[in-house]
Amino acid sequence: MSFVDRLRECSRFNPADYLPFLVDGTEVGLILPGFAARLARFPDVFATSAECVRLAAAIPGVEGRTRAIETVLRQLVAEGAIRSWRDEPYTVAARLEGNPLFLMERAAIPHFGIWASGVHVNGYVRTGEGLFMWIGRRSPDKHVAPNKFDQLVAGGRSAPYTVLETVIKEAEEEAGIDEALARQAVPVGAMSYRTVQPEGLRRDVIYLYDLELPEGFTPVNRDGEIAHFELWPVQQVLECVRDADDFKFNCGPVAIDFLIRHGVLTPDDEPDYLTLARGLHV
Amino acid sequence: MSFVDRLRECSRFNPADYLPFLVDGTEVGLILPGFAARLARFPDVFATSAECVRLAAAIPGVEGRTRAIETVLRQLVAEGAIRSWRDEPYTVAARLEGNPLFLMERAAIPHFGIWASGVHVNGYVRTGEGLFMWIGRRSPDKHVAPNKFDQLVAGGRSAPYTVLETVIKEAEEEAGIDEALARQAVPVGAMSYRTVQPEGLRRDVIYLYDLELPEGFTPVNRDGEIAHFELWPVQQVLECVRDADDFKFNCGPVAIDFLIRHGVLTPDDEPDYLTLARGLHV
Repeated sequence: MSFVDRLRECSRFNPADYLPFLVDGTEVGLILPGFAARLARFPDVFATSAECVRLAAAIPGVEGRTRAIETVLRQLVAEGAIRSWRDEPYTVAARLEGNPLFLMERAAIPHFGIWASGVHVNGYVRTGEGLFMWIGRRSPDKHVAPNKFDQLVAGGRSAPYTVLETVIKEAEEEAGIDEALARQAVPVGAMSYRTVQPEGLRRDVIYLYDLELPEGFTPVNRDGEIAHFELWPVQQVLECVRDADDFKFNCGPVAIDFLIRHGVLTPDDEPDYLTLARGLHV
Repeated sequence: MSFVDRLRECSRFNPADYLPFLVDGTEVGLILPGFAARLARFPDVFATSAECVRLAAAIPGVEGRTRAIETVLRQLVAEGAIRSWRDEPYTVAARLEGNPLFLMERAAIPHFGIWASGVHVNGYVRTGEGLFMWIGRRSPDKHVAPNKFDQLVAGGRSAPYTVLETVIKEAEEEAGIDEALARQAVPVGAMSYRTVQPEGLRRDVIYLYDLELPEGFTPVNRDGEIAHFELWPVQQVLECVRDADDFKFNCGPVAIDFLIRHGVLTPDDEPDYLTLARGLHV
């Protein structure tokens, strides 16, 4: 196991396995043939062929598309083809942060291989004994990555929220951090990846934040998504990410980015420094 | 003009213009046909063809290759085909940080399109009025990028030095920073690029450092490479990099990386955030 394995875990993707999903002739997603076959039962909404899946041309406008697709998705949830309805509408656009073509329920996004975005906040503490990081243990009830380690705050960005608003909302829900403290989180970059996970094809942009916390602060989870938090010396983070597979798939690369930016990994000592400094960008 | 233009300036490169330079069958460089024609006059050292330039197979070992090539290079300097002899031997390897195949005088590196590495140190000050950065104005006598703006400390890494030793050496020479202070510089990542500059094809890895300086500190150049230093509010750095072409070609992208990592640019406000966060990596 190595740091580079953590990056590879976010790059398990073979484009040849997928059919493009087209809206108005523009590719917005990638769909497995098996899921395309399910969509073929709804020809008023999805026009499927051996080459691609198209949104039916007769459906106009953001709201019209959103409603038509939601009808199909609710049917697929009822059949168990999509696991649950999370009631978090995600924006679908020709390119990330582009003009919205329609909104789509979050649970369906990996089935359609649509780009999504989210935030991860590294919560850290400078002490006399060095740098520490707050690490969350994900709830055993989570559908995605139960019991895995996670950053202090992480969450997907649904349609009504800016990136900063997502940080503020998730900081409150996940770690009991009030808005004033959450606004001290510093945006420090972004990563992007395409990778196959149990829930489907994840094509994500993650906006990265660092939040320095006072020594007396203790996070409190409010939404049940985190079982408990622990304050780890940064060396423990380093060793866990490098030597084990205990972090959620996208949390390992976020931690590596933190270790690079804070000088915990150095070019003279880390043989894979250039690969790790490159990070994840597609 | 935009931030993205600064990144493009580091990506002006067409591989079809070059012949590969091979050592023991491994490509280590890229040479323009015009320069290859000059090397063809030294068939004991360089075997040139329409497809490539090869180091003569009969020359064995690191020292043997280094000596044989140096003899040719000194002749080319005497003829004016290479501008000057800087007396800084660079390591040449099949891949950066790989086992050295030979050493080559720095001034010749861009003629052979060989990967080189260096360090750039962002010198910054936190004040009650916000973040400031020390910016150097390069000497009018510099061969490369005279009069352009530069980071506090920047320099190429020649063969005997580790990355950190290069930081310490350059910090003393360029900014009068003693070793104790230079060791506080934090490695924060790396960038790499291939780009055509007046001196030839630059294929560089730059190791990036941040050095927080006390308010009372003033850098003093000792090697004549910097005409003077100025302490700029970070907003002035942002505007100069975005709106003008006054930084040395590789210093603009280094500054952009700093602006991203320190939250001066934010995902909600900067339309090119994802491109800028990706940075330069080849």
